[in-house]
Amino acid sequence: MDGIGVNFLSELVGTAMLIILGGGVVAAVSLTKSKGFGAGFLMVTVGWGFAVFAGVTVAYKSGGQLNPAVSLAQAILGNITVGEMFLYWLAQLIGAIIGAVIVWLAYKQHFDEEPDAAAKLGVFSTGPAIRTYGWNLVTEIIGTFVLVFVVIAFTNGKTPAELGAIPVAFLVIAIGVSLGGPTGYAINPARDLGPRIAHAFLPIRGKGSSDWAYAWVPVVGPLIGGALAAGLSYALLPLAS
Amino acid sequence: MDGIGVNFLSELVGTAMLIILGGGVVAAVSLTKSKGFGAGFLMVTVGWGFAVFAGVTVAYKSGGQLNPAVSLAQAILGNITVGEMFLYWLAQLIGAIIGAVIVWLAYKQHFDEEPDAAAKLGVFSTGPAIRTYGWNLVTEIIGTFVLVFVVIAFTNGKTPAELGAIPVAFLVIAIGVSLGGPTGYAINPARDLGPRIAHAFLPIRGKGSSDWAYAWVPVVGPLIGGALAAGLSYALLPLAS
Amino acid sequence: MDGIGVNFLSELVGTAMLIILGGGVVAAVSLTKSKGFGAGFLMVTVGWGFAVFAGVTVAYKSGGQLNPAVSLAQAILGNITVGEMFLYWLAQLIGAIIGAVIVWLAYKQHFDEEPDAAAKLGVFSTGPAIRTYGWNLVTEIIGTFVLVFVVIAFTNGKTPAELGAIPVAFLVIAIGVSLGGPTGYAINPARDLGPRIAHAFLPIRGKGSSDWAYAWVPVVGPLIGGALAAGLSYALLPLAS
Amino acid sequence: MDGIGVNFLSELVGTAMLIILGGGVVAAVSLTKSKGFGAGFLMVTVGWGFAVFAGVTVAYKSGGQLNPAVSLAQAILGNITVGEMFLYWLAQLIGAIIGAVIVWLAYKQHFDEEPDAAAKLGVFSTGPAIRTYGWNLVTEIIGTFVLVFVVIAFTNGKTPAELGAIPVAFLVIAIGVSLGGPTGYAINPARDLGPRIAHAFLPIRGKGSSDWAYAWVPVVGPLIGGALAAGLSYALLPLAS
Repeated sequence: MDGIGVNFLSELVGTAMLIILGGGVVAAVSLTKSKGFGAGFLMVTVGWGFAVFAGVTVAYKSGGQLNPAVSLAQAILGNITVGEMFLYWLAQLIGAIIGAVIVWLAYKQHFDEEPDAAAKLGVFSTGPAIRTYGWNLVTEIIGTFVLVFVVIAFTNGKTPAELGAIPVAFLVIAIGVSLGGPTGYAINPARDLGPRIAHAFLPIRGKGSSDWAYAWVPVVGPLIGGALAAGLSYALLPLAS
Repeated sequence: MDGIGVNFLSELVGTAMLIILGGGVVAAVSLTKSKGFGAGFLMVTVGWGFAVFAGVTVAYKSGGQLNPAVSLAQAILGNITVGEMFLYWLAQLIGAIIGAVIVWLAYKQHFDEEPDAAAKLGVFSTGPAIRTYGWNLVTEIIGTFVLVFVVIAFTNGKTPAELGAIPVAFLVIAIGVSLGGPTGYAINPARDLGPRIAHAFLPIRGKGSSDWAYAWVPVVGPLIGGALAAGLSYALLPLAS
Repeated sequence: MDGIGVNFLSELVGTAMLIILGGGVVAAVSLTKSKGFGAGFLMVTVGWGFAVFAGVTVAYKSGGQLNPAVSLAQAILGNITVGEMFLYWLAQLIGAIIGAVIVWLAYKQHFDEEPDAAAKLGVFSTGPAIRTYGWNLVTEIIGTFVLVFVVIAFTNGKTPAELGAIPVAFLVIAIGVSLGGPTGYAINPARDLGPRIAHAFLPIRGKGSSDWAYAWVPVVGPLIGGALAAGLSYALLPLAS
Repeated sequence: MDGIGVNFLSELVGTAMLIILGGGVVAAVSLTKSKGFGAGFLMVTVGWGFAVFAGVTVAYKSGGQLNPAVSLAQAILGNITVGEMFLYWLAQLIGAIIGAVIVWLAYKQHFDEEPDAAAKLGVFSTGPAIRTYGWNLVTEIIGTFVLVFVVIAFTNGKTPAELGAIPVAFLVIAIGVSLGGPTGYAINPARDLGPRIAHAFLPIRGKGSSDWAYAWVPVVGPLIGGALAAGLSYALLPLAS
């Protein structure tokens, strides 16, 4: 398999792993009769953090990007071509869809018995605590900026795997507990859009709307945040080791 | 002591350590009058994760497998013989039984004062939140697949100790918080069967059924998940470093 | 850019990152309708700990001091000049103000809908559980002493970045959960004063007093604690590796 | 300063640090009006775990023993003389007393306003959930055995600092969440006896009994557990790397 193929597979499998564990923890906390029901926001953020750890570990070959906003920053920094970036985006989106399907299978009975359609959608995609698209966008921009800035800009344009899977996990926990309050911190277009697509096509019992009206926010916000971080990283290159 | 003897002892002692700390945290959270009573699902998953850390640390010599599903994957990958695999399984099962007895001794008075027989069994073995053997099996397959795939397939067939005891602990926390909701994540036949045997023979005051009807699920599911991960790891060998 | 300029930028950006994530977690836990509302003190301490991790990672070039009490200790130990110390203090203060403004933007709607002025101030600055300036000062001295002593004195006068970003994060979590009860552990003059200044000038809807009467405690206490730790580190130099 | 003097100072300062942070977290969770009040058992165990991290970091020179049961095991293994062991015990006890005094100062006002004498004693020393000295002793033996066995026996008789301050912290968290339910896991004679002595002589407002009737259990139990672990480590030497 050539380098592009390996990287495509790496991003796909890594993002699937990210969503299996990340979507899983939301299911564990929010679906009826789950043993983790009501375990709280700290557990959700720990789950997403270690999900990134597992995803980056699996996707080491491609730098564990797992996030179109990270790949956009890589393209802006000239580390990958725009063509490669689109391939990575595709791999990340497909991986996220597959991951969401697996979460649904793992929690199949709990989806069947859950009466609240919003809780079901919440396992797949994020939604705002207070719906105002402009401010929701601001929050997603800031969260993704922090993620991409710490990971990419500081390491002189290198990838999450360069920082290490455990430090990235701690960074994602930090962003979750700190900036996750208003929008549930998508901070990753594939993480939100892929599972939303899965929600739309899966035969989930009693599912409601996939809330497509909001779907652009966790796609556009993270891309802006990632691009800003890449741009600012030039100004801050003196900090890079 | 020859290599096989060392590995047998290593797996036995490591799995005992795993169960002392893992069974212990369930006792701490669920038995009446325990100082950790009601501390929640996050603490349970942290306890099991660091229990794996301690077990892998102790069982470094044999790769810290501690899990028949991991050893099965090792055999499929040709790292150990089928004969060695059965020896490891035996060591893991004996270690798990010993660990469960020690948990009972540490919480002896709390078992004596606990009125709920289900809570007592829960310290030893897992049970489903919604009992449907087929879907419970699916959940255990997925959880074990994630464990074995990240550990074994990515490292090109190496062992949990190769990934490191702390990363494995974080992976187990990730699986617990994410995929533990439906079945309590056995993801390890010895972890479930060994303590269930101990529950059956120990003179626990007011104990109820050992729920043998469910006992096959956390044995068969993890073995299928581990075998799937080993098989898929061939397809994903390009990802291995 | 020369060395002083790099260090100034490094401290400014690192402290901004610290406050974005640290102030953010208080907002997540305490502002109405946040998804993290009521998630508890453990989450707050985890958030501040990993905020320090992110800040130290970004500010690696200047040693990740991010704290005037740490820089004072560095000056006492002769690692930086008094002039450099004042430049670091300025960078840390500016960074903290910028970070606080970003937290306000990320949680803008939640500030608007929050009825409790004290909760709003709490996102920016610390306040005592029982107001007695003398004892509040003692608590801040002890907390900062522990921070600076473990980081600086033990490493023979080296910086937080020398100890490593993850160990420093764990140390800050330790101090938060242990010594944070009485005053909310400022243990850093810039962390408290910078956001308090931001609170004073930002057009926050329904904000109350910035509680300037208390503002000196989390400035003076940490400076005393840091100076004590630097002084004692001479006596304990035999411990340094 | 000669080697013995350095080690004495190292153990004294490290154990003081351990108790400042460990006793502190109990105060944070249990004393009235503390900002961490009611934060739960998981936070207590995280606090003690990272307290050990800080203590071992500070006491690196002497191996970060901080615990008479660890030093007893070291003496049994022939790594230190019996005379050195008694010096270490003395240093650990003095350090623990000093640490407890500092906790009292940091939480002075909360002690003054706390109406419950048992909550005050709990900041200093452990007590059993169900008082039966024999079984309480068993629990303390098992917990300390796990601690000393993983640390000492596996590393072929080396010290906590050899395993690393962060792994030891995770091990202590594991023991706390798992085996802390029945007795509050002293697992260290100095950790319990030193603060109990401080409780007896400090002028704490409205303090009750220092519960000397129980005081022997968290001294004798850990010493038995440590000795057992050292003894068994000979049988398990083949596991040591």
